[in-house]
Amino acid sequence: MKLMYSAVSKEFINSGVNIKCATTTQERIIKSIFSKKASNMLGFLDLPNMQKDEIEKYKTMGSEIRKKYKDMIVLGIGGSALGIKMLKNTFFDSINETPKCNVRVCDNIDSDTFITMLSKLNLKKTMFNVITKSGSTSETLAQMMIVLNRLKAKKLDISKHFVITTTKGNALYNFAVENNIPTCEIPESVGGRFSVLSAVGLLPASVMGIDIEKMLAGGRQGLSIASRLDEKNIPFTTAYINYQYLSKGRVNFVTMPYSDRLALVPEFFAQLWGESLGKKHNLKGEEVYAGQTPIKSLGVTDQHSQLQLYTEGVDDKIIMFMTVDKNAYDEVISEEIAITKHLTGTSLKTLLDYEYISTAYSLAEVNRPSYTISLPCICEESIGELIVFMEMMTAFMGSMLKVDAFDQPGVELSKIYTKGCLKMKGYEKYGENIRKFKKVSSKFSL
Amino acid sequence: MKLMYSAVSKEFINSGVNIKCATTTQERIIKSIFSKKASNMLGFLDLPNMQKDEIEKYKTMGSEIRKKYKDMIVLGIGGSALGIKMLKNTFFDSINETPKCNVRVCDNIDSDTFITMLSKLNLKKTMFNVITKSGSTSETLAQMMIVLNRLKAKKLDISKHFVITTTKGNALYNFAVENNIPTCEIPESVGGRFSVLSAVGLLPASVMGIDIEKMLAGGRQGLSIASRLDEKNIPFTTAYINYQYLSKGRVNFVTMPYSDRLALVPEFFAQLWGESLGKKHNLKGEEVYAGQTPIKSLGVTDQHSQLQLYTEGVDDKIIMFMTVDKNAYDEVISEEIAITKHLTGTSLKTLLDYEYISTAYSLAEVNRPSYTISLPCICEESIGELIVFMEMMTAFMGSMLKVDAFDQPGVELSKIYTKGCLKMKGYEKYGENIRKFKKVSSKFSL
Repeated sequence: MKLMYSAVSKEFINSGVNIKCATTTQERIIKSIFSKKASNMLGFLDLPNMQKDEIEKYKTMGSEIRKKYKDMIVLGIGGSALGIKMLKNTFFDSINETPKCNVRVCDNIDSDTFITMLSKLNLKKTMFNVITKSGSTSETLAQMMIVLNRLKAKKLDISKHFVITTTKGNALYNFAVENNIPTCEIPESVGGRFSVLSAVGLLPASVMGIDIEKMLAGGRQGLSIASRLDEKNIPFTTAYINYQYLSKGRVNFVTMPYSDRLALVPEFFAQLWGESLGKKHNLKGEEVYAGQTPIKSLGVTDQHSQLQLYTEGVDDKIIMFMTVDKNAYDEVISEEIAITKHLTGTSLKTLLDYEYISTAYSLAEVNRPSYTISLPCICEESIGELIVFMEMMTAFMGSMLKVDAFDQPGVELSKIYTKGCLKMKGYEKYGENIRKFKKVSSKFSL
Repeated sequence: MKLMYSAVSKEFINSGVNIKCATTTQERIIKSIFSKKASNMLGFLDLPNMQKDEIEKYKTMGSEIRKKYKDMIVLGIGGSALGIKMLKNTFFDSINETPKCNVRVCDNIDSDTFITMLSKLNLKKTMFNVITKSGSTSETLAQMMIVLNRLKAKKLDISKHFVITTTKGNALYNFAVENNIPTCEIPESVGGRFSVLSAVGLLPASVMGIDIEKMLAGGRQGLSIASRLDEKNIPFTTAYINYQYLSKGRVNFVTMPYSDRLALVPEFFAQLWGESLGKKHNLKGEEVYAGQTPIKSLGVTDQHSQLQLYTEGVDDKIIMFMTVDKNAYDEVISEEIAITKHLTGTSLKTLLDYEYISTAYSLAEVNRPSYTISLPCICEESIGELIVFMEMMTAFMGSMLKVDAFDQPGVELSKIYTKGCLKMKGYEKYGENIRKFKKVSSKFSL
């Protein structure tokens, strides 16, 4: 992985934004994270170095599921979904491939989608991987109950159609054990959005046939870069660039890969960046309303949708491009008609590269800052390294902003009101609030 | 379609944001748009009332293609892609259906995706719909040349495998005529991002089996609402709410449907809103750097990703929720285990509704403004109405911001540099700039 930050050109050079953090600050932040003093939720740092027998478990389970089942449906949401969706797109969908056992992720509870999907499955040949760290995610459990109902109606043995990935010892885990349902564990110290290199992502990856050992090796490479104490620490440098730009008012952060294979990376990164850094309070308890809004984009596609705004709209963004040096497939344009002579002899990939560099340069020309992360190619190693890069960049940015990058207190309120709607004991008053709110709403509707 | 704006609750009521525009201003803006004095690019207002014979043409072509071909590949980007992708998702993908003739949109030039897709097609049974208003979009023409090469290699009659949708009389149109390739026309006065209800969207919709007459009827309903001179003009009211919030510093605009079937609506809307309003100059030529950054979201999925940031991060957003009153499929949760008793007896759709209202309320509690657009159901009429709503809201917002909502000058620079890279005559100096830029870049890379 390489970082090219000169694409920021004039703006970067004249803006007072540095790439070198004060050495002592960098050392302090890196040491507090790698010594795990910064938080008790830094277990994701250990995942790339997990024990051989844990890796073997996922490989064996994965290959057995792949042999016996046509589909594996992941029931999970947020951190239990986004990494898997990204891996599926990177290694399959984007190159028009389907895994032998097709892994699909259900991360919404829209009944139109969920019920129609279930009714098209051959349940006898379907495995369901329920993934929820707490074991109590309402959406996931709702899906699971509907599946349970269908399996029982077909008199299918539920222990043969569920794998449950959760924290050891919680109520869902115990349900699994009582019913002989195989389990995979998410360590207590690994937060949902940092869990893709745990069982959460590794089992589905293994089912799809992705080489998880190579992915973990890439993760170790990412850790090694992230522990450097100089500016070659790419996640630290990029976090520091963002930190400085944010303090100058650049509240929006665009991620724009020039690669269909990386098309879901911005979606995965948006959770890491948004949920980790968007915080009302800093570690001292002061109100700071921190964070930088992640914006998902895709090159060249969004040149024809969002580039106008990035170039001429409110100047409050910084752009992280992602590029891939070498594609697996390419083709030179050899046919021509009168209006395509300028394209003849150029390959599709070369045209993509030209469009990226032209976009980066045209933004630099109008002093809109950007930098580029480039991968040598798409493979398990480079993706493992990219995952750890994004996790570490987020953790470093959290330290710079002095917020807890590993909690999500702001989503609790919505969950409480949902419990109120469901008339859960102890939540009655919240249900009452919602009823009043609806009444006021209907008065103001057109 | 209904608008519920009380979800903004305290913030809305106390913030000085009104829903009623001064009547004279509203009248002036609406009249200048509907009389087409505001711009010569307002042809999209006529599309829902197009001639019967034009509708018949798309219906007939659509049904013939559906009978004869297994796949129709759309080669197009931006406005020539996003509407079609949205319709495909709304009426097929989101409910796990595949059209009899499968319409797929290629809106990127990543060779890994494009080449692998081509090699999996049975070209004999494949139609290619090339869509580009100017007839000169490099990405689309590059794709077309590669396809042309493959068709010739297989000795297939190109007039049987292409339909070209473009402006009458341009070079691509003339190429089609010379080669007996059927054509569909995009009126000069219809901009790309406002073109989904022209041949651009109607032919692919018709091929998929979507009832285009009903969709246009929905569009007429949308126009009728948009021409009202009171606050029941929903697109005007929402534009005005956004205009006021933007002037108070809410620079980000989140679109968050609680429906998988509307999951690509934010993507479609992001082009309309971003490319139309993100402008350096206003109509007087003054530097304004106008616009509001569109942010794509999905409920409930993004409650587990972006809600934390929306609730606690920088307070610079306004949220437009979208809901659907009635789903086509639903199921009551009847199974239970120890930890799911609170869910028993609730249907999946009801749970979705609870989560939406709880999220809207919890945001209102912390004074983060939102409003909700609700559709009675998903059908051709409601989607046609929604499309016109989004177009009109954008046009009205353009008038309020006093910018030209129908051009995109900011993307020209990037196109010019790409031509420089391609060594097109007259663009040599731009190529030289890029080479210098690359040299500086490599100096600054890690």
